[in-house]
Amino acid sequence: MAPPAQICHTNNGDSPNAVAAIRVVAKETPPPPPRSASLLDADEFRRHGHQVIDLIADYYANMGSYPVHPSVTPGFLRDKLPAEAPSRPERDAFAAALRDVRDHILPGLTHWQSPRHFAHFPASSSAAGALGEALAAGINVLPFTWAASPAATELEMVVTDWLGKALHLPENLLFCGGGGGTLLGTSCEAILCVLVAAREKKLAEIGGKRIGDLVVYSSDQNHFAFRKAARIAGIHLDNCREIPTRRDSEFAMSAVDLSAAMKDDVDAGLVPLFLCATIGTTQTGAVDPVSEICAVAAAHGAWVHVDAAYAGSVLVCPEFRHLADGVEAADSFSMNAHKWLLANTDCCALWVRQPALLVAALGTEQEYILKDAAAEGHDVVDYKDWSVTLTRRLRVLKLWLVLRCHGVEGVREHVRAHVNMAASFERMVRADERFEVAARRQFALVCFRLRSPEKLGGEKKANEINRRLLEEVNATSSGPYMSSAKVGDVYMLRCAIGSTLTEERHITEAWKVVQDRAADILGKLKSTR
Amino acid sequence: MAPPAQICHTNNGDSPNAVAAIRVVAKETPPPPPRSASLLDADEFRRHGHQVIDLIADYYANMGSYPVHPSVTPGFLRDKLPAEAPSRPERDAFAAALRDVRDHILPGLTHWQSPRHFAHFPASSSAAGALGEALAAGINVLPFTWAASPAATELEMVVTDWLGKALHLPENLLFCGGGGGTLLGTSCEAILCVLVAAREKKLAEIGGKRIGDLVVYSSDQNHFAFRKAARIAGIHLDNCREIPTRRDSEFAMSAVDLSAAMKDDVDAGLVPLFLCATIGTTQTGAVDPVSEICAVAAAHGAWVHVDAAYAGSVLVCPEFRHLADGVEAADSFSMNAHKWLLANTDCCALWVRQPALLVAALGTEQEYILKDAAAEGHDVVDYKDWSVTLTRRLRVLKLWLVLRCHGVEGVREHVRAHVNMAASFERMVRADERFEVAARRQFALVCFRLRSPEKLGGEKKANEINRRLLEEVNATSSGPYMSSAKVGDVYMLRCAIGSTLTEERHITEAWKVVQDRAADILGKLKSTR
Repeated sequence: MAPPAQICHTNNGDSPNAVAAIRVVAKETPPPPPRSASLLDADEFRRHGHQVIDLIADYYANMGSYPVHPSVTPGFLRDKLPAEAPSRPERDAFAAALRDVRDHILPGLTHWQSPRHFAHFPASSSAAGALGEALAAGINVLPFTWAASPAATELEMVVTDWLGKALHLPENLLFCGGGGGTLLGTSCEAILCVLVAAREKKLAEIGGKRIGDLVVYSSDQNHFAFRKAARIAGIHLDNCREIPTRRDSEFAMSAVDLSAAMKDDVDAGLVPLFLCATIGTTQTGAVDPVSEICAVAAAHGAWVHVDAAYAGSVLVCPEFRHLADGVEAADSFSMNAHKWLLANTDCCALWVRQPALLVAALGTEQEYILKDAAAEGHDVVDYKDWSVTLTRRLRVLKLWLVLRCHGVEGVREHVRAHVNMAASFERMVRADERFEVAARRQFALVCFRLRSPEKLGGEKKANEINRRLLEEVNATSSGPYMSSAKVGDVYMLRCAIGSTLTEERHITEAWKVVQDRAADILGKLKSTR
Repeated sequence: MAPPAQICHTNNGDSPNAVAAIRVVAKETPPPPPRSASLLDADEFRRHGHQVIDLIADYYANMGSYPVHPSVTPGFLRDKLPAEAPSRPERDAFAAALRDVRDHILPGLTHWQSPRHFAHFPASSSAAGALGEALAAGINVLPFTWAASPAATELEMVVTDWLGKALHLPENLLFCGGGGGTLLGTSCEAILCVLVAAREKKLAEIGGKRIGDLVVYSSDQNHFAFRKAARIAGIHLDNCREIPTRRDSEFAMSAVDLSAAMKDDVDAGLVPLFLCATIGTTQTGAVDPVSEICAVAAAHGAWVHVDAAYAGSVLVCPEFRHLADGVEAADSFSMNAHKWLLANTDCCALWVRQPALLVAALGTEQEYILKDAAAEGHDVVDYKDWSVTLTRRLRVLKLWLVLRCHGVEGVREHVRAHVNMAASFERMVRADERFEVAARRQFALVCFRLRSPEKLGGEKKANEINRRLLEEVNATSSGPYMSSAKVGDVYMLRCAIGSTLTEERHITEAWKVVQDRAADILGKLKSTR
């Protein structure tokens, strides 16, 4: 790596004396300084913009050659950068910065677009998604109200209906059926918004000071996003119920257990507020029985949110539509189009059955709820009242471009291709008797592990060995990058297929690396006995 | 406007029968469908990317020719778009989509980058900011933990320190002084994060169930963002104090009144939790006396957050540094670099004195706070524990590019140019005896109105006339676009100068339009008497 000077080389020279000196001058009201003409110059933007596009295109073309995860230690970049921003730009600063991106920043990133990135869930990219973001950043409008950029708001209303229909969502969640959708940043934000809407509605019914009596429910497989949202919304940790799940029911929430938990709470004088159901949990892709648990929640007047952050994308395929049976009874539904639906980060779509409840809780005008239906999220929507934030980005352009340029069928093929690759990977796991599939695969996430805990020395030892297997797989410089889950006390490897660039051969190669590392580990284990 | 067919023309064909038919096929496990090779193809990205860059460059070059605000009515775009996404893309879909952006979407936007956009606060763009976003969208990594993209986290740590130093913030808010910064979306999010951190800390001290006893404070000039954050965090509306401000103290919060309010609450058995001070209020740009009110808050153990969403940018100029005197006693500070500091939306910088408190409240690992100092936001930061969301965008590239390409001096010149233009505008207002400056101008926001309520028929009538003046100014197709404030019962026009493309001549022309419209309104008023 070049010395710090190359990354950024000057000192801004604001010593205490310099500050004092400038202050003195300021008292005299200095003449207007010359403005840099190049801040937003069309020609310079064009020239630099083409350089950026070429850099990204080269990055995509060479994606396969990067190790997915860099081999670096904390401080590797920080220690080499100067402590202060430059006072004046260096010569050809933009070109120099792009060189640093290429030479120093890219090699220090984890490459989420690598065809060998199988960790976490995908951060799915497409040219349409990336360029939709570029377009939005260039246009840079803030559509926080309809008036603040009418076309942006109207396009968001249309495209959230498009997406809802493409996912076969019930009409009561769409504008065309009296509900409506919006594009937020992440699922955490979506869950927080509807949780606060539910809380305000419930407190209006039972008395505004009883926040301490409200209880929220999810399965023990629920993503931390929900616990985070509940904590932010002021729900006490003691009032967050995690219904235990079992392997023999595929880690799905039990409606019977949920009902018992709600009844216990009611008996104790508490108030069931909110149920977060999941279609496609983070750990194993489990699916809660939406119809059944909606019925339980309805009996107690609790709001039901369906979090389909990951697996919501598969609903674009009719063969998966049944997973959302019962969603028409839910109050809200969200999924991340940036996870698997080609819309670059961030793009969480949230739909609600009663937009007026969102507006009542998050709106700037508290009398808003009293207005007539025509103004409540139908003719004109002011999206600032549908989210945690007031300022918001123009997220809809990229999603519109994705649907426009690939069509619903194109998106379906994209999702199905990954599901089919995952089925291949699963077949390879099953064909090797040293391994087992550790949780039912439905989508494009395969959870697997070295089997036979007895042979490996019991569950605890088996977990250690599988952890070592993951470490060794991930340490293979041109190999796959996977992550792990621990469900109950069972440690398993997660192979989440979803990078746009992944092809069948990457799956085969990834499995070969896993097999090789396993053979090595098991061999050493045998020889040390 | 062309018929809907031009915007998007096919139906996805998912009639109930179609769904049933596909389901039947699915049961047979269909063969892998062909994948669209073009989803993330480097060459296609390059070709389309250059088209996008050219579209944006042309937009910048022609910015002056757009009316700032489109003359459209609700439904103008929505009614013309098809109800469903296309099933298959049309021929040359990307080119067709870009044509629609040019012909139908751009003309329906409010042009925040117009040199005549003076409404709200600026959404400041630069080529470096826009291209930094494009680069980040193309790279599309999710730096939610250090490991999830090491270079991204390290660059964010370095650049938030760079920005903090450029703004002359005290070292105790920076990583180099034991605190630390992060880049979030908006001020609402920043305030919510620190409010929850403060709440959890306080509840740990006084008992976890006393959320109903916690009280928050701001001036009555505070932005709605704070009330929204407080509501989301479960602070009851009855416990949100808005300290009244007065014209004769330039709408700044009174430390004496704050102290009295806190004392009253303590006497009533309540617990002062959080004070939100503002440097540069939304309505008039007022500045709270940070030192004095920090001292009041300290006496009651309340957290102090300084919200400098708009005016934080001026701290880059040493002549304004004194406005932040006393910030070293605050617990946290935030400003929006997307408002006036050339970083495109969104980019809110938040700094905190004790990162461990953020992590304790928002972190996924609750035992985290027990770890030693080296792991608490110093050697390795997992930014997912510093925000409402877990998933996060790569925001730092654009801010790094802005500072790298323009230097601290370049940013200073940018801010000073707008302050000087605002001073010019203020001089023009003062030179016209029909008008008055309605609140002290310190930055680049000028609040003004037609004066002499007596002559105009009293305050109420004067407000109506000034409202009409704004409407007529904004209806002038090639004129400026401004917004309004109402402080106390006084309605005023707001001219917020901050678009990167605004030059002195736009100020002069804007004032001419205001004068012309005023002459017309006052003339009609005289003739109808």
